[in-house]
Amino acid sequence: MVTAKARAVDGPKDSFRAAEIERRALDATDVLIEIKFAGICHSDIHTAHGEWGEVQYPLVPGHEIAGIVTEVGKDVKKYKVGDRVGVGCMVDSCGKCKNCQEGEEQYCLEGNIPTYAGVDKYGDYTQGGYSTHIVVTEDFVLKIPDNIPLDKAAPLLCAGITTYSPLNHWNAGPDKKVAVIGMGGLGHMAVKIAHAMGSEVTVLSQTLNKQEDGMKFGASEYYATSEKETFEKLAGKFDLIINTVSAKIDMNQYLSLLDLNGTLVNVGAPAEPLDINVFSLIPHRRSFAGSLIGGIRETQEMLDFCAEHDIAPQIEVISADDIDKAYDRVLKSDVKYRFVIDTSTI
Amino acid sequence: MVTAKARAVDGPKDSFRAAEIERRALDATDVLIEIKFAGICHSDIHTAHGEWGEVQYPLVPGHEIAGIVTEVGKDVKKYKVGDRVGVGCMVDSCGKCKNCQEGEEQYCLEGNIPTYAGVDKYGDYTQGGYSTHIVVTEDFVLKIPDNIPLDKAAPLLCAGITTYSPLNHWNAGPDKKVAVIGMGGLGHMAVKIAHAMGSEVTVLSQTLNKQEDGMKFGASEYYATSEKETFEKLAGKFDLIINTVSAKIDMNQYLSLLDLNGTLVNVGAPAEPLDINVFSLIPHRRSFAGSLIGGIRETQEMLDFCAEHDIAPQIEVISADDIDKAYDRVLKSDVKYRFVIDTSTI
Repeated sequence: MVTAKARAVDGPKDSFRAAEIERRALDATDVLIEIKFAGICHSDIHTAHGEWGEVQYPLVPGHEIAGIVTEVGKDVKKYKVGDRVGVGCMVDSCGKCKNCQEGEEQYCLEGNIPTYAGVDKYGDYTQGGYSTHIVVTEDFVLKIPDNIPLDKAAPLLCAGITTYSPLNHWNAGPDKKVAVIGMGGLGHMAVKIAHAMGSEVTVLSQTLNKQEDGMKFGASEYYATSEKETFEKLAGKFDLIINTVSAKIDMNQYLSLLDLNGTLVNVGAPAEPLDINVFSLIPHRRSFAGSLIGGIRETQEMLDFCAEHDIAPQIEVISADDIDKAYDRVLKSDVKYRFVIDTSTI
Repeated sequence: MVTAKARAVDGPKDSFRAAEIERRALDATDVLIEIKFAGICHSDIHTAHGEWGEVQYPLVPGHEIAGIVTEVGKDVKKYKVGDRVGVGCMVDSCGKCKNCQEGEEQYCLEGNIPTYAGVDKYGDYTQGGYSTHIVVTEDFVLKIPDNIPLDKAAPLLCAGITTYSPLNHWNAGPDKKVAVIGMGGLGHMAVKIAHAMGSEVTVLSQTLNKQEDGMKFGASEYYATSEKETFEKLAGKFDLIINTVSAKIDMNQYLSLLDLNGTLVNVGAPAEPLDINVFSLIPHRRSFAGSLIGGIRETQEMLDFCAEHDIAPQIEVISADDIDKAYDRVLKSDVKYRFVIDTSTI
């Protein structure tokens, strides 16, 4: 067993407090990671606040984890002490179902084991990355390329793969016009990645406040969705739209922006159902789809792609004492573009 | 000008009456068709009743047309007098836009010209197939293969292509599990076509009343959606689901039946928006899509495919005097599976 320091919440309305948690003794294929940085994802907030169903408290969130290997189990083959590694939104899956066999562990038919607020194969509650250490089976550990600093690598493990995977699956590339709805943690990564894939990228944001940033990240156009003309002007323009917004928005307006055979992919997850008018889909054979993070192989591919194209998130590194403040700021969209906890301050 | 006999309605609540309509004098590329049979599509009813927006009365519906060429314009190349031909849901399009150029005239960016209740390039209201004659530019005329009787060919021009096109576009084939929602005019064609494409086909119908027929048409399984166990049993099973039902149904239940990367395509067009829960899509990267008839090239391909695989709709041929009665029966789902008007009775 390894005793790790962590920051935990004790209930949906509680602030974070210092805590100690036990990480399991290393199994043959396990890797012990000294966490250096952990990103703050909007999902952490939803889960900590109990908005996505009941969770077991105390809870340590965090599924954007970057650190260094400090010990390996006796059968570990892929990693050695000193390696720079990452852990994302899942730490295990059944490994046997059709989807796992295809390398799509995120869609494991038994349900993947989430990095926190899940139950692992030992029957223990999983605890996330707002912590100094974590133990993870090597198949769910990612290698972080040398030219990506660990603090910037952390958000790639969720925000990066969540946007890379649909862009990859729906073939973003030089012949594709891509729009990104929302310019937050996920949105700004979607812009950078789609641009690096060669697509022409348009940002659709509520206001033009972040326009300068958007253009810097690789967008060639930037529109305010608060202006009605935006929807008239861009009608039928895009092959692929990535919606990173978790709030309920008028999806039919956005579907009208798709070209023939276009797809709008939701990676944001509004709790309420969306009203889809079939007449928004039928006239141009449009699709409305959803996508969940990515598989382990694809996550490694994303990290290597980001290294090759020199892509990294914009981050603001914070101390562990400022997690509550950071949550408040995320809820006010007052972050450019991802908070990352320096876990040496835990 | 050609004076044609027809059956028309004068208002949303009126019965059909005998009428005479003028068909335009043949332009250089026009074909005059003596209509032999015209199918009755649910869209005819919606339009005649003014349920899909205001229309110009008197209105002659009918967009499942089969007949014989009796005269051709001086520049017509594809057809000659005596040819067996068909006309579907559209009679023209701009021919110049990106979608037309790709042979997807149904998605013409200027809007295709519908066979009835539209305005053609001469500024005249189009009138449909419940009539003895029609004049159509040759590019929107289809060749009916010799081994398909004209009465059975008629419904292929809408019910056939509306189901063939999404099955073709989303690659139904031997490696695909396909479900068809609804066993009406469209549904029974979807079963036959998907089966001929080599897919394993399951019918999802409200009751088991038409099970015997469904199995005869090529389904290997048939389930009643009124039974709750159906949705539990079939969860995650299908690669492609074709929804032929126009009523508002609980789409999230049906989306739960899709396998990883599966698509549910709506060809039915409910007037109300559907409530889509994003959590129905995200966990298996599912898509909810729409599809509209097919292009002219694809419609010809469908006719040839049906001829090759000996596929034809089940029809009940009626006299023109029975159109009102037939409408009532369609609204009660009391038809196996398509009414076809013998236009010699008009």
